[in-house]
Amino acid sequence: MNSYLLRLEFDGTNYCGWQRQKNALSVGDVVFRATETLFGGVTGFSGCSRTDAGVHAKDFCVSFSAQKQKDSATVVRALNAALPRDIAVLSCQPVSSDFHARYSVREKEYEYRICTRPVRSVFAEGHALMYGRTLDCEQLNREAEALVGTHDFSSFMAAGSRITDAVRTVTRAYFEHVNGDETVFHIAADGFLYHMVRIVVGTLLEISEEKRPDLLSALRACDRSAAGRTAPAQGLYLARVTY
Amino acid sequence: MNSYLLRLEFDGTNYCGWQRQKNALSVGDVVFRATETLFGGVTGFSGCSRTDAGVHAKDFCVSFSAQKQKDSATVVRALNAALPRDIAVLSCQPVSSDFHARYSVREKEYEYRICTRPVRSVFAEGHALMYGRTLDCEQLNREAEALVGTHDFSSFMAAGSRITDAVRTVTRAYFEHVNGDETVFHIAADGFLYHMVRIVVGTLLEISEEKRPDLLSALRACDRSAAGRTAPAQGLYLARVTY
Repeated sequence: MNSYLLRLEFDGTNYCGWQRQKNALSVGDVVFRATETLFGGVTGFSGCSRTDAGVHAKDFCVSFSAQKQKDSATVVRALNAALPRDIAVLSCQPVSSDFHARYSVREKEYEYRICTRPVRSVFAEGHALMYGRTLDCEQLNREAEALVGTHDFSSFMAAGSRITDAVRTVTRAYFEHVNGDETVFHIAADGFLYHMVRIVVGTLLEISEEKRPDLLSALRACDRSAAGRTAPAQGLYLARVTY
Repeated sequence: MNSYLLRLEFDGTNYCGWQRQKNALSVGDVVFRATETLFGGVTGFSGCSRTDAGVHAKDFCVSFSAQKQKDSATVVRALNAALPRDIAVLSCQPVSSDFHARYSVREKEYEYRICTRPVRSVFAEGHALMYGRTLDCEQLNREAEALVGTHDFSSFMAAGSRITDAVRTVTRAYFEHVNGDETVFHIAADGFLYHMVRIVVGTLLEISEEKRPDLLSALRACDRSAAGRTAPAQGLYLARVTY
């Protein structure tokens, strides 16, 4: 058997997320079908994470094994010819048989795009949160600092999530202004809980709006109700996966 | 009567261009209807230029007059609530009654986005030319230099165009690399001929591909057949209009 790692880019607007679902088209379905057709059968087809409906990816990783051996350039070219325009394969590389796109992850980085100009942007539509107000990066970065380190992130996990160990290690968390019209939040960790980035962003926006005092008390509460709203999916991008 | 200047942004993907056409939805139609409804009737509704189907605008100007007087913030808010998500009003300002969005133009600037990475980009899809090869900006800028100044641009005008005076003054024409994955061509002039920017870009790409020797000989020929192909509409943006 030959094992491979695919790196993908996708616009999640028209999909129910990565994971297969009944009665909805998932990115995983579409990529699986194209890959299976090209290789004439694959096993252990796994994505690096479940992503929510409408979430985008600049770097999404998939691992699988196949009987057939194919060179990387051929795989990239053939899959990009077969895949729809909102999904592209950036690279394909051979990996060892024990490599797993999800379990071998060392670090993932997400970005959350916030359009801050007063008028909505037609080009960022569906690809950023239309926030309409400027953000104070210095203030927000002082708050985001509390996320860095190893903590129990239960407060930032969607209610009803079945995960029992909510301890994760965040390595970076900061905002930066981009282009004058946009502010981007970056967060990197060894793993993320269900809706974690979206709840963190929603909470930080509520702090910016003076609807809540700080992030540290929300983090320490280990209780979803101590954190803020869940920011919309459309602003979120899986930006980098490190193995 | 009160006269106004609207500055718009639009994603041209789903429209037949600015100009009204039978059996096709134009940006002008949509903006006219929203403006007419808001003001209860408008006269002299004029766009700053005809744009082709699929062409985008970061700054498109419209002038009109109306009996009703309205303050700018109200107009911007009301029109943005009424317009679809791919059209936005950036500003509204009162102007003198002899102002005309098209005839009062001093300079227009267009941008043409070229995606140069080998794999197509899902986020630039429909918003840039998927070229797939890197471009040598220095070489292209030496060629583009020939455009600057007052010339007869007949070679860069779509065949069948009814315009008789093809003399225009180009003030800037240059390429720049953006983000590592993209090259953008900028061109500013007092006016443009039908398809001019797209033919200029197509010709410059053919020079880069060593399919033709230089731009100067194409310019001097004053003959459409001496220039290159027409680059696709999707990479083109009306970027700035100066009065």
